[in-house]
Amino acid sequence: MEGRDLCLIDQRLLPHALKILRLSTYPEAIAAIREMAVRGAGTIGVTGGFAMAQAALAAPAGGGFWQEVERAAGAIAAARPTAKNLSYAVDRVRAAMKGAPGIEEARRRAVAEGQAVYDDDARMTEEIAKAGLSLFQGRRSVLTHCNAGWLAYPGWGSALAPIYLAHRQGQSVFVYATETRPRSQGAKLTSWELTQAGVPHALIADTAAGHLMAKGEVELAVVGADRIAANGDTANKIGTYTLAVLAREHRIPFYVAAPSPTFDAECPSGDLIPIEERDEKEVLEVSGLLATGEAATVRMANPGTCAKNPAFDVTPARLITGFITEQGIVEPNAQAIGRFLHSR
Amino acid sequence: MEGRDLCLIDQRLLPHALKILRLSTYPEAIAAIREMAVRGAGTIGVTGGFAMAQAALAAPAGGGFWQEVERAAGAIAAARPTAKNLSYAVDRVRAAMKGAPGIEEARRRAVAEGQAVYDDDARMTEEIAKAGLSLFQGRRSVLTHCNAGWLAYPGWGSALAPIYLAHRQGQSVFVYATETRPRSQGAKLTSWELTQAGVPHALIADTAAGHLMAKGEVELAVVGADRIAANGDTANKIGTYTLAVLAREHRIPFYVAAPSPTFDAECPSGDLIPIEERDEKEVLEVSGLLATGEAATVRMANPGTCAKNPAFDVTPARLITGFITEQGIVEPNAQAIGRFLHSR
Repeated sequence: MEGRDLCLIDQRLLPHALKILRLSTYPEAIAAIREMAVRGAGTIGVTGGFAMAQAALAAPAGGGFWQEVERAAGAIAAARPTAKNLSYAVDRVRAAMKGAPGIEEARRRAVAEGQAVYDDDARMTEEIAKAGLSLFQGRRSVLTHCNAGWLAYPGWGSALAPIYLAHRQGQSVFVYATETRPRSQGAKLTSWELTQAGVPHALIADTAAGHLMAKGEVELAVVGADRIAANGDTANKIGTYTLAVLAREHRIPFYVAAPSPTFDAECPSGDLIPIEERDEKEVLEVSGLLATGEAATVRMANPGTCAKNPAFDVTPARLITGFITEQGIVEPNAQAIGRFLHSR
Repeated sequence: MEGRDLCLIDQRLLPHALKILRLSTYPEAIAAIREMAVRGAGTIGVTGGFAMAQAALAAPAGGGFWQEVERAAGAIAAARPTAKNLSYAVDRVRAAMKGAPGIEEARRRAVAEGQAVYDDDARMTEEIAKAGLSLFQGRRSVLTHCNAGWLAYPGWGSALAPIYLAHRQGQSVFVYATETRPRSQGAKLTSWELTQAGVPHALIADTAAGHLMAKGEVELAVVGADRIAANGDTANKIGTYTLAVLAREHRIPFYVAAPSPTFDAECPSGDLIPIEERDEKEVLEVSGLLATGEAATVRMANPGTCAKNPAFDVTPARLITGFITEQGIVEPNAQAIGRFLHSR
């Protein structure tokens, strides 16, 4: 955050252009979340926290201040429904403001708490990196889905954090990145991150994951999460559930990397997690670069055809080997998750 | 076939343009198969059979005729490795030519047998349509992968044949077509075919199949095949295996529609089926129409990234509920397949 402005990478333009988006108001931040200029559970959360600070700075110091902050909190938390991190960050900033002696102090606390959410998230991903490191003992090839790197989460990212650390420590790591249609975050974001970091990897179509697992090419699967219910059921990018079923079929360990802000203690099970349905255009169209270097979107699908576009799915806890958290590996059951969340 | 010319729809241009490709020589036919201007097990086979006729018509009537025909047979059969129908058609035309009294008669037989392969294939798909009809009793929503319609197989197609018949007979059918990256045959070809035929359908990203099955939205899965081993293991478009694993997980019947030319009695099991690895550009790039209506290919993926692109996978017989063939439903085991192939 610079003054009242929030500066973020416009993830819609990657990997073809690296452009910083400057957001001056909280409605601009909401639009950036909705349109997925910023995406990834942690990044959405942190953007939401700073958007609360923007709302506090902009709200009139007169009688309407708290009403305006409450209105903003509702709108920010509703920008996207699935990731828990968004309401987590909004609630933290709101709670920090409450009881402040005067509006100026409330504003100061809002900015400080937005920054604290960011700093805490970043620190937790360092712990996740260390906690996941042992999974690479004797394993080289890891499959990941969507993007759960530093674009998606402050600091090191979630699923990619242990991969980055293992690579830095000189371990031989090879990543299979699934394309992750419809928005192709694997092809556009994860592949870009891994290239920047020099981590050996290959992109595969989402259809190829089963074949590679059957051929013994995948030794470990690690994904991120958008919301984890109290019983361990996990909402993550559409396609995660399919990969978890395949991993179980091939006895491949399937880990979900997520710090505590992604856990939702008040949601008892996965069937209660709201699943966002997004515009069918995401399925029907694809964007990229023309041979001329110009950015373009092409209509790929048949013109008369409609598409269904659920953006997330739920992986039941029974298919998850463990959660990689800031406090180590947590077993995928209500008791272990309860202890973990209680101790944070 | 018109004279020496083979006229086929250029499937690379669909759904955005319907253009007939005219192939005058067998090397042109080989190139069309390799570049997937023609694709689909049956269509590849029939093209190969007619390409043999082209080779016979063009081979010099002097002493080198039979050597030239043999050379062509080898080259045509090797155009793509996975679909059994290609070597089946080449072998049929070659066998029909053998023992002909003179070169002119050999040429006549080559053309006639090429046409006979086509006619037989088309007739078999009508039988497949009838054989699969009973699967729609009490079931409405069917998922299919890639394109196994009349573009892929002469006549009615394979997997889509029973769907077309059920729809024509007034049954309520709804098709989920998976996009089928990397070449998006579901989005481009199956969706186009279904739109032409007025069959209600929705396109989904490959990543969404598991979620829809978990939600109870899929009652039946039917796919085509490129080669079926003697034990029932089935090679088909990459992603088929994943769908079969998901169907089993959700107790959804999973059928493979294929006439006898797709069965390979000499291949004992799926691990011996050659799996084609295709150009990584198919994964890295996507083609479609710009808003201007102009056809274009965009580089979708990160520039520094390589891709792995297996074009097929093998679904073990244990995950297949049954084969829909020209002689009815055949159980997925060596005995039943042996009886079926023996009786043809």
